[in-house]
Amino acid sequence: MNKFKIFNDPIYGFINIPSELIFDIIEHPYFQRLRRICQMGLSSFVYPGAHHSRFEHAIGAMHLMQKTINILKNKGVLISKEEEEALLIAILLHDIGHGPFSHTLEHSLVTGIKHEDISLIFMEELNNQFNGKLSLAIKIFKGDYHRNFLVQLISSQLDMDRLDYLKRDSFYTGVTEGNINSERIISMLAVVDDNLVVEEKGIYSVEKFIVARRLMYWMVYLHKTSLVADYLLVKILKRAKSLFLNGADLPCSNPLRFFLDYNHDINFNSIQFSNFSQIDDYDIIMALKQWKNNDDFILASLCTSILDRKLPKIIIQDNEFSKEQLQKITEKVELNITDKKGEIEYFVDTGVIKNQAYDLHHNSISILYKNGEIKDLTKASDHMNLLALTKPVVKHFVYYPKSLYSLL
Amino acid sequence: MNKFKIFNDPIYGFINIPSELIFDIIEHPYFQRLRRICQMGLSSFVYPGAHHSRFEHAIGAMHLMQKTINILKNKGVLISKEEEEALLIAILLHDIGHGPFSHTLEHSLVTGIKHEDISLIFMEELNNQFNGKLSLAIKIFKGDYHRNFLVQLISSQLDMDRLDYLKRDSFYTGVTEGNINSERIISMLAVVDDNLVVEEKGIYSVEKFIVARRLMYWMVYLHKTSLVADYLLVKILKRAKSLFLNGADLPCSNPLRFFLDYNHDINFNSIQFSNFSQIDDYDIIMALKQWKNNDDFILASLCTSILDRKLPKIIIQDNEFSKEQLQKITEKVELNITDKKGEIEYFVDTGVIKNQAYDLHHNSISILYKNGEIKDLTKASDHMNLLALTKPVVKHFVYYPKSLYSLL
Amino acid sequence: MNKFKIFNDPIYGFINIPSELIFDIIEHPYFQRLRRICQMGLSSFVYPGAHHSRFEHAIGAMHLMQKTINILKNKGVLISKEEEEALLIAILLHDIGHGPFSHTLEHSLVTGIKHEDISLIFMEELNNQFNGKLSLAIKIFKGDYHRNFLVQLISSQLDMDRLDYLKRDSFYTGVTEGNINSERIISMLAVVDDNLVVEEKGIYSVEKFIVARRLMYWMVYLHKTSLVADYLLVKILKRAKSLFLNGADLPCSNPLRFFLDYNHDINFNSIQFSNFSQIDDYDIIMALKQWKNNDDFILASLCTSILDRKLPKIIIQDNEFSKEQLQKITEKVELNITDKKGEIEYFVDTGVIKNQAYDLHHNSISILYKNGEIKDLTKASDHMNLLALTKPVVKHFVYYPKSLYSLL
Amino acid sequence: MNKFKIFNDPIYGFINIPSELIFDIIEHPYFQRLRRICQMGLSSFVYPGAHHSRFEHAIGAMHLMQKTINILKNKGVLISKEEEEALLIAILLHDIGHGPFSHTLEHSLVTGIKHEDISLIFMEELNNQFNGKLSLAIKIFKGDYHRNFLVQLISSQLDMDRLDYLKRDSFYTGVTEGNINSERIISMLAVVDDNLVVEEKGIYSVEKFIVARRLMYWMVYLHKTSLVADYLLVKILKRAKSLFLNGADLPCSNPLRFFLDYNHDINFNSIQFSNFSQIDDYDIIMALKQWKNNDDFILASLCTSILDRKLPKIIIQDNEFSKEQLQKITEKVELNITDKKGEIEYFVDTGVIKNQAYDLHHNSISILYKNGEIKDLTKASDHMNLLALTKPVVKHFVYYPKSLYSLL
Repeated sequence: MNKFKIFNDPIYGFINIPSELIFDIIEHPYFQRLRRICQMGLSSFVYPGAHHSRFEHAIGAMHLMQKTINILKNKGVLISKEEEEALLIAILLHDIGHGPFSHTLEHSLVTGIKHEDISLIFMEELNNQFNGKLSLAIKIFKGDYHRNFLVQLISSQLDMDRLDYLKRDSFYTGVTEGNINSERIISMLAVVDDNLVVEEKGIYSVEKFIVARRLMYWMVYLHKTSLVADYLLVKILKRAKSLFLNGADLPCSNPLRFFLDYNHDINFNSIQFSNFSQIDDYDIIMALKQWKNNDDFILASLCTSILDRKLPKIIIQDNEFSKEQLQKITEKVELNITDKKGEIEYFVDTGVIKNQAYDLHHNSISILYKNGEIKDLTKASDHMNLLALTKPVVKHFVYYPKSLYSLL
Repeated sequence: MNKFKIFNDPIYGFINIPSELIFDIIEHPYFQRLRRICQMGLSSFVYPGAHHSRFEHAIGAMHLMQKTINILKNKGVLISKEEEEALLIAILLHDIGHGPFSHTLEHSLVTGIKHEDISLIFMEELNNQFNGKLSLAIKIFKGDYHRNFLVQLISSQLDMDRLDYLKRDSFYTGVTEGNINSERIISMLAVVDDNLVVEEKGIYSVEKFIVARRLMYWMVYLHKTSLVADYLLVKILKRAKSLFLNGADLPCSNPLRFFLDYNHDINFNSIQFSNFSQIDDYDIIMALKQWKNNDDFILASLCTSILDRKLPKIIIQDNEFSKEQLQKITEKVELNITDKKGEIEYFVDTGVIKNQAYDLHHNSISILYKNGEIKDLTKASDHMNLLALTKPVVKHFVYYPKSLYSLL
Repeated sequence: MNKFKIFNDPIYGFINIPSELIFDIIEHPYFQRLRRICQMGLSSFVYPGAHHSRFEHAIGAMHLMQKTINILKNKGVLISKEEEEALLIAILLHDIGHGPFSHTLEHSLVTGIKHEDISLIFMEELNNQFNGKLSLAIKIFKGDYHRNFLVQLISSQLDMDRLDYLKRDSFYTGVTEGNINSERIISMLAVVDDNLVVEEKGIYSVEKFIVARRLMYWMVYLHKTSLVADYLLVKILKRAKSLFLNGADLPCSNPLRFFLDYNHDINFNSIQFSNFSQIDDYDIIMALKQWKNNDDFILASLCTSILDRKLPKIIIQDNEFSKEQLQKITEKVELNITDKKGEIEYFVDTGVIKNQAYDLHHNSISILYKNGEIKDLTKASDHMNLLALTKPVVKHFVYYPKSLYSLL
Repeated sequence: MNKFKIFNDPIYGFINIPSELIFDIIEHPYFQRLRRICQMGLSSFVYPGAHHSRFEHAIGAMHLMQKTINILKNKGVLISKEEEEALLIAILLHDIGHGPFSHTLEHSLVTGIKHEDISLIFMEELNNQFNGKLSLAIKIFKGDYHRNFLVQLISSQLDMDRLDYLKRDSFYTGVTEGNINSERIISMLAVVDDNLVVEEKGIYSVEKFIVARRLMYWMVYLHKTSLVADYLLVKILKRAKSLFLNGADLPCSNPLRFFLDYNHDINFNSIQFSNFSQIDDYDIIMALKQWKNNDDFILASLCTSILDRKLPKIIIQDNEFSKEQLQKITEKVELNITDKKGEIEYFVDTGVIKNQAYDLHHNSISILYKNGEIKDLTKASDHMNLLALTKPVVKHFVYYPKSLYSLL
């Protein structure tokens, strides 16, 4: 019998670990590794409190799932003991496949595979180690289970993932505009015809939730400073890979070297998986620290830029940048910093950011009216504003060295 | 020299009283009377914590004004000592004219005059007593002052009144969806060409503010239970007046009797003002308690309905109720409760509720961009949702005795 | 089937009403009356947010009881369905016997009986109306039930009453020093040998609770301003009774007149009970408003003093006031205000306040150590500070008219 | 002119950077390095939210200092512009000398020097770079300035350091018992005869502060799980040093190797300082990751123990452990794990923890009474409990491998 069965979460207070199996999963090194992966990448550059890890988020989402299960059961929804544990495990492990710096490096370290698929690989490996006890959790996670609302609790526009991360990220960043009342929304969930719905009285809480999520995107997740920091990090790995390709050997941890010095497809065979499972934020930051004085000017200057927080200038606007604008920047950088072909992209780059606050077509949110009717959220007479929010918002950005400040 | 100079507000913490004059105004019986007028009328029927008074709101709005003045001054806006004290007094007294149960009885006890105009009468009376020291405050309150942004701080879509009451009402009701970050919005205010504007970085905070206000309207201020309670209260006064008109004498306080037994125009001569200034929530509730067992069946049953919280059934819908629907209700009530002409309206009534989250045409909110440009909030490229919110939302309701529950 | 089954509490969020019977008790006019009795009497004179009523406190204490029951059951303590409902009802009604202004007027309006005993009378009356369904609740409330820990949940140094009122009063006053983490303490309760104990890991939370309670007493409950206001209120009723005794008739509500004009023992016969059950804060404040201009100088000036918040000077000190000090004050008051025998006590009075933070001898708090041992809280090696807190602290005060300010 | 001038702190909200010089200090790599040093070492093993860094604490303490300065100035205390900036810089840099894992490794990496002295070395180096602009800050930090209260604001029992870290650590750990109202305490500070005092009305807030600090020590800072983790970390460095001494070369960053492979006195010459300034938490954790599979069994097992959070068993008790108890443990470990001389101390160790909640003799807290009298906090008549808290509490612990669970 294990003894340690409680977490003290600054947001929800005491969180109980509901079963031995879940306790053992949390104790597993794969899961403990999440303690060393920051939930929000480099956002602490903008919001200094945002150091929280994927570990806490996973535990928090599990806690909300437990609450939701209790509420649904109290409303008469039948959920078996096996389904309950599977739901808790599925949400606990939904992000276990995240590599260092989460989304930022998602397609840099290991290309051609999404973190959800890597999560699945982790889950299947754990399933082996735990003698098949995770099979139902995996089925629900993959969306293969016949009871649809269980799948929706793991992944939909109102899933436990979102209900936790918005609240949590708002808490640690101090962006109170993003604070949602997760427990309140949960208390108004119900199930009709195997689908998750929200009771009528919860309509404004859901509206608030969607607006809060939108605000978090623009104020936090797509904040221009962390955006440019993210881009630099990606460029650093790119540069390192290219140096390795040219025969250089950069000091770094062995598992990190494994991927930097590897140019073939990743199918996550056992050696690849083993290496991947050993990498976290510390490998990356430590590499940056070791490369800060590297002979390669590009690598060294990018690493210094992150470590000392001397970031490039970034400009965001609604329209695409014109050829002339970009030309002007490029010329100046070529004149002052580098004129080597292929190198300018390390110093200047453009990109697009996009957010759709509410997706009408994919897992839309249904409202259950008192008369039993079910309508999409946007169909309520006075929610034209939500309909407006189904249109994706797109913005364009360019960044370039700060020393060339007055370019645009 | 007065000694008591600090309030302990559960929302903002310590609030200092900034001057002797303001201290003396707060000490005045006219202002102390606000302690006995509930900020949210009968909303505590729905949200049991909502017992806070107009007194606290006025002090809170003054506190926000003080913060705003400091911030604007730090940004280089010139505000003289006299203007500063006048602003503080004007916001402190902006609601001094509210009678018992604030908006609910605004046009019942005293007809033909708005609470803002009664506030003005109070302010002028105080100005007499304080030897003209409130003249500038009155000028700003009336909108007659040449510096427009000072007027906007007292009355506009982002005035200190709204910034306090939304936060305060959210706090006491527990409707966290309405919680706004007033201090954050304030920190992003600026003045351009004598107009109040919000700096670009504050755009999402303002969006959140508008959505929060909209949610507070539908979830709290227009909640159907407090709506029907409000209507009953109005009907009670109406019935009492009609009984007085017919020669009855109902037990109640003298100042209340003065208005119930009075059928002429109110021009707030000194005797009228004196009586009005003595009435607060206690006169009303105490009257209800004394009328609860009155011989008049209508009066007695309405009073019992409020005191024991046995409220009528209320139905809200997007469209107007049809003649047939209303006919059906009326017949049933006539059959079961009363068939006297003119009495049915005490038991059955219809009405319209309306809210416009953002008013584009009146005191709209301007955003100051980094390049110096100023645009209306709704003109920002990705705020179509706010544009949608400029359209007023209208709903219709009917209420009738609960014992006839299954009518609609 | 009743419909309204949820409260929105600003402190705990949603509170469910757990049964039909409890719903019906809450709906009863006796319980609705608690909406009109302020939890903290005149404390809003010092802490303007403290307008909350006994109604909310009772609901909140019931909510904590529900949480406690669930936690104890999860720890294997057997609590039957009947005991559960009885506990909830007992805590819901533990303060139903409070009259207007709670403790302040507890021995003024009706002498010779404590509010707990009046609560019992209310509970028995309700038990009649609800066909004996409250019998078990009454048994527990009276301390007659054989399972001791159920009694302790209703009344002890860690009962649900204290766990709610400290948190609630801290919330509404804004005195954050008194904020306790009630849910945390509850989560560490256990039952051993039929006694409520606190698990070892909760020892610091309990220490914090005791210190918080102590601070609330000195900063809030015994704050000198509300102390003097309380005394004035008592004196007002005393004066009114004495005027009635001398044949005067003061305007006030009939139930209030019943007690003011009554000079016999109260045994709570049905007519006495009926009158008592109709009185709340509104009767008192309205009486003050009607007596404010009374011909009796003493009555009028005391009422004005409360209504306009023009309170006497109060001085608190550790030692008793000397005869000389009191003599000096008395002479001055006789010279300036009144020289009639027996009248001076309306303007000048002395008293004693006392608080014992932790009572070692009565229902002390037991700590359950991991090895199964149970010790009193103060026996833990490093809690000498709590032992120090078992000594009652006593202070002395005198108050007199402010116009004689410089007397002491 | 620098542009970035505001921080968004989850605790205090917006924090302004008050001057260009301070902005430039914050931008300096020495200060940015604090982003990579966790405020609470390995406490996140117990309290998963406790990932906050020394960077945020330093900024937060500066913010409180700014508030304090404003309050004292409003009370008429003269503080010059130069003193103001010096105070802000001194508090900002008071912990700049902390190495990785703060207190945990304070005497492991670099022996014979306290972090305060290293802070001074950093400050003097910065003073060189900023042309002597930090001289006054250094004078105050060293306690050499003639105005004593300025020194007390930097270091005393009520300094800005404590007022920030208690609040901050309580926030991130979720241990609400430790939450203090820093802004409230600050508002009651005053200066008499060049000494910092607390106004009489603040006495309970200070009492709460001392109790909260005491609770934080026992519940958080000296929590047995982080205690044992701290010990392991120290042992790891010790083992690494001993391996280096024996000629091994362990993979790690160059600056870390510099100290591990160095056996002479540290006088912080420029090369030593340069290396020290490059080390942070990442060097340590990355080393552990690289040593996890090292051939040295002791090193590998200690590193795994931390990284996978498989910690030894730790027992805490009031009395010293007896020779017999320790003998029993030692024998068992020798039997099962190692019998090499000198190696057992890596697996088994004992120690003492101690906390004194209030120090009567060193920088005690003075209360300013309304009559002008100044007394020590413990002299107030009803604060015997604080006097009790001046006695240091001492506890003893032993830890040993968990697999030998049932030893004691």
